[in-house]
Amino acid sequence: MQSRLRHLLLGSPLPTQQLVHERLNKVRALAAFSPDALSSIAYANQEIYLGLVIAGSAGLSLALPVGLAITGLLILVALSYFQTIHGYPSGGGSYIVARENLGTLPGLVAAAALLTDYILTAAVSLTAGVAAIASAFPALWPHRVVVSLALLVVITLLNLRGLRETGTLMAIPVYLFLFTYLPMLAYGAVRFLMGGPGSLTAASFPPTEPLTAFLVLHAFSAGCTALTGIEAISNGVPAFQPPEAKNAGQTLMVMALLMGLLFLGSVGLTQGLAVVVGPQETILSALARRLLGSGPAYLLIQTSTMLILAVAANTSFAGFPRLAALLAADGFLPRQLTGLGDRLVFANGILLLAAATGGLIVVFSGDSHALIPLFAVGVFMAFTLSQTGMIVHWRREGGRGWWLKAAFNGLGALATGTTLLVVGVSKFGQGAWITILLIPTLVMGFLQVRAHYRDVAQQLSLRGLPPSLKPFPVPRVVIPISGVHRGIVDAIAYARSISKDVTAVYVELEPGAGERIREKWEHWWPDVPLMILPSPYRSVVGPLLDFLDEIDSQHSDGQLATVVLPEFIPARWWENLLHNQTAWLIKAALLYRRRHLGFQRTIIDVPHHLER
Amino acid sequence: MQSRLRHLLLGSPLPTQQLVHERLNKVRALAAFSPDALSSIAYANQEIYLGLVIAGSAGLSLALPVGLAITGLLILVALSYFQTIHGYPSGGGSYIVARENLGTLPGLVAAAALLTDYILTAAVSLTAGVAAIASAFPALWPHRVVVSLALLVVITLLNLRGLRETGTLMAIPVYLFLFTYLPMLAYGAVRFLMGGPGSLTAASFPPTEPLTAFLVLHAFSAGCTALTGIEAISNGVPAFQPPEAKNAGQTLMVMALLMGLLFLGSVGLTQGLAVVVGPQETILSALARRLLGSGPAYLLIQTSTMLILAVAANTSFAGFPRLAALLAADGFLPRQLTGLGDRLVFANGILLLAAATGGLIVVFSGDSHALIPLFAVGVFMAFTLSQTGMIVHWRREGGRGWWLKAAFNGLGALATGTTLLVVGVSKFGQGAWITILLIPTLVMGFLQVRAHYRDVAQQLSLRGLPPSLKPFPVPRVVIPISGVHRGIVDAIAYARSISKDVTAVYVELEPGAGERIREKWEHWWPDVPLMILPSPYRSVVGPLLDFLDEIDSQHSDGQLATVVLPEFIPARWWENLLHNQTAWLIKAALLYRRRHLGFQRTIIDVPHHLER
Repeated sequence: MQSRLRHLLLGSPLPTQQLVHERLNKVRALAAFSPDALSSIAYANQEIYLGLVIAGSAGLSLALPVGLAITGLLILVALSYFQTIHGYPSGGGSYIVARENLGTLPGLVAAAALLTDYILTAAVSLTAGVAAIASAFPALWPHRVVVSLALLVVITLLNLRGLRETGTLMAIPVYLFLFTYLPMLAYGAVRFLMGGPGSLTAASFPPTEPLTAFLVLHAFSAGCTALTGIEAISNGVPAFQPPEAKNAGQTLMVMALLMGLLFLGSVGLTQGLAVVVGPQETILSALARRLLGSGPAYLLIQTSTMLILAVAANTSFAGFPRLAALLAADGFLPRQLTGLGDRLVFANGILLLAAATGGLIVVFSGDSHALIPLFAVGVFMAFTLSQTGMIVHWRREGGRGWWLKAAFNGLGALATGTTLLVVGVSKFGQGAWITILLIPTLVMGFLQVRAHYRDVAQQLSLRGLPPSLKPFPVPRVVIPISGVHRGIVDAIAYARSISKDVTAVYVELEPGAGERIREKWEHWWPDVPLMILPSPYRSVVGPLLDFLDEIDSQHSDGQLATVVLPEFIPARWWENLLHNQTAWLIKAALLYRRRHLGFQRTIIDVPHHLER
Repeated sequence: MQSRLRHLLLGSPLPTQQLVHERLNKVRALAAFSPDALSSIAYANQEIYLGLVIAGSAGLSLALPVGLAITGLLILVALSYFQTIHGYPSGGGSYIVARENLGTLPGLVAAAALLTDYILTAAVSLTAGVAAIASAFPALWPHRVVVSLALLVVITLLNLRGLRETGTLMAIPVYLFLFTYLPMLAYGAVRFLMGGPGSLTAASFPPTEPLTAFLVLHAFSAGCTALTGIEAISNGVPAFQPPEAKNAGQTLMVMALLMGLLFLGSVGLTQGLAVVVGPQETILSALARRLLGSGPAYLLIQTSTMLILAVAANTSFAGFPRLAALLAADGFLPRQLTGLGDRLVFANGILLLAAATGGLIVVFSGDSHALIPLFAVGVFMAFTLSQTGMIVHWRREGGRGWWLKAAFNGLGALATGTTLLVVGVSKFGQGAWITILLIPTLVMGFLQVRAHYRDVAQQLSLRGLPPSLKPFPVPRVVIPISGVHRGIVDAIAYARSISKDVTAVYVELEPGAGERIREKWEHWWPDVPLMILPSPYRSVVGPLLDFLDEIDSQHSDGQLATVVLPEFIPARWWENLLHNQTAWLIKAALLYRRRHLGFQRTIIDVPHHLER
């Protein structure tokens, strides 16, 4: 039943040899790597608007200048990554570039920033996508958390299944987005040129805050999230058809051009047409509504926005598990993250990402605006580290004109580093502090994990063990019983088959119950001693552990008694809830109580299956 | 560490003999049993307002008539419960009254309705309490879910600790509420009499729906939640000082009087002063603000509203675990719910209630208005069943004038039954359907649980077992290994101490790894056979289970091989996350796979503890 459901949702297991690497042409590669970058204009626009509107119409008149500044940064970062692609044709994610050129610690900082970013990309994209569709259907607005989570579940299941068969499917939202947005922006530009600019009545937009330089910086730093995703191509160079670096570089340039067009076009039109918006709509939705009315064309725009944002969230599901597996292979994360599941995907990484994303959506009430301050810090930290790493890379590589390449990446590092500072300071109180605290915490975690694995490897070495290993003497056995019934018959028989020294133990929760048990016991197993233990605090585990310690101390051979547990196995899974899980409690207590050095206590589970 | 935290939060264990029953005088009993009843005016008022405001000022002018109708119902229900108290001086909860007089099935329906109600009381009270305080501090409004959950955690911890020591503390919010609200209402009445009625400008309140009879019924049914909690005293008669029934009856009358005063007073003043309210405030807050301004007096009112609602939520934490334990003792719910924890409270019931309440708060976005339709159905179902049971009770008991008493409860049953119908129909689409579906589902669950326990009891009987139980032959042992390292040394030694027939098994995930393992293996354990199993689908569990089946089928003695599992026990709990939990996977697969009849496979855990 359970496995049939699993089969239906996730498909049947795939053998290892099906793991192949498909190469992408430029058109498909653009669709594969650009959703995050292109879709980020949706929330970046929203952030600029929200950042400036509090200063009233004077604030909103600065949207285009802020947008131009961000576009300048975009060009710089795109050129820097163009160089990274040529420097690391085998794939230069920030983790690899920073670790190889700057050392392990900066590499881990970049990795921590990236992992955080992947989670936030998923959370921000999903919530922004739901906001886009809820702008069209206001009835959905109060249910954004639930809708976002439902979308998350669908994406998670698709990824656990493995997305190979849907690769082409993913291209549709990207091109749909381009082929609806670009014409809309062109149409808007025509309308603007023919009809002239709109005007905001200052009266309807009273400023709630004065227009300060800080406020503008604030809007700028939030709007910088337009750049997220631009690094995706540099991570994935090997997926391109040869010549990989050349094709990837060209694709990057096309993507950056599209990003700039979409971003500047929508910011410019919003300001030019004096579009404003209420609390339950996005600014892009309001722009589309102004241009297209509320009919099918508008709905198509909102749907394509939601779809590309969902696909953008999906890119995290490719990146996060892969980076986590890379870190796990290097010993910085739990090893389970390296394991390909039976559908040839990093299932544990996918589940981890889904859980973290879901948590963020719930905690931040499905509001992308609240998540943005956390987001921007990580993005620009990874950018800065990667660019700085590239400077070192070019210097090491040397060759003709290395300093020119290094200077270019240096300019990128300077720009992204400055932005990082601006974001960190201006958004600190609104959530950037969380990321700023989280990244060093993650790095410390990475280091501790690696220290643990190294330590264990040393402990497990067989070196120094005496060459002839002699067997233990036959064990002493203790059986805790919950009563005299058929469920313990097999356990007692098993115990007696492996040892002559068997003692049964009954923990008496109600005074007097012990004597009734003893009577029955002596009828069935007169030759096995039964101990009755009182329990004034109604705990089964406490008196049992004390008894075990006592009999161990009575023997001076250093051996610990074995515990045989009779365990109920119901026929249906839900029936497990109906039986006292005392066996599990005892096991947990025995396993995790490290009272003794040397040889630890062994547990034998003898199941008793219930019929029907 | 873990147990120290537990100790700090929950206190140290208490011995069973500390379980005493304290008797309450009337003043303390009122405080103990009335919070739910008194505080329900907070959300009932809100519901009437929200129900009528959509019909504009014409709708709002019906608030007082609706309030009067509800007060009539309140009087009727209070008198009916007065009779229940005298009929069941040992405590007549709806479950007991319905089961004893109407039969098991109606009893279970009442129990299901009550359990649902306890959860909804907790959820509605908490969210309404947070709405009260967020009305005073609008910055809290968007964070109502988180604040409600935080409050829930605090109440849960207090209850897990056991509330005995805070009994008197609980009386403070109740009397604070009475001593702030009643004077405020009196002051409002004076102002109304001196200043005359306020007036709503029809223009500012355009009706969005016509004023239909259905709309009024709708508001009435939502307002009926003012009656919730009125039954609390009848459940707790034995807690009163003798003469119990007389004292309890008097307390009930005082409580009903206070409920009526508070309810009618606030509804009347709201209408009389034409108080209206925006979306981020409660109507009671707006009334208080109108009367007292926004100063300290207003804040005191909102704080006392929140406190009494929190205490009302807390009463669920007394009632739910007790009813669940009663049902569990009768075999209708899992037995774990009967266990007194080490602080002498029904810890599992408390945790179950907390989880369900938390779930409701999240799913309904902390909005008490959305929860009310689910709430009212259960409340009135329990009322109706209890009243109907009382009719049968009086007839059975007979005696002089039994028919008069029966007629009184009959009237109560009729009134609450009619309300149940009104609520069920008018609120069906808004959530009442959930409760209407849930209650029969729960009842079916109860019956299935009891059927299971009866079935198990039969299966466990030792009757029919041969009088001399002979021991099993010595077991065959299989040890799955993950490599040749110190972690498996003890497991192999243990296996050899209990059996001569030991086989090690290595599941080969990467082709070629098996041969490297075999070389090392033969150096250390040349006399123990090692099997290398290929695994094309990268599953450890699958090939192992197949191998076990195979060797079982090679022997015709009907015995299944025992599995010895070498298990890592790290020194720190979090390090568990760093090791492949393959041992757990194998155990789960072995325990829950019921492929065989008769004797089931036994598992031996030999732990290997890691240092540091």
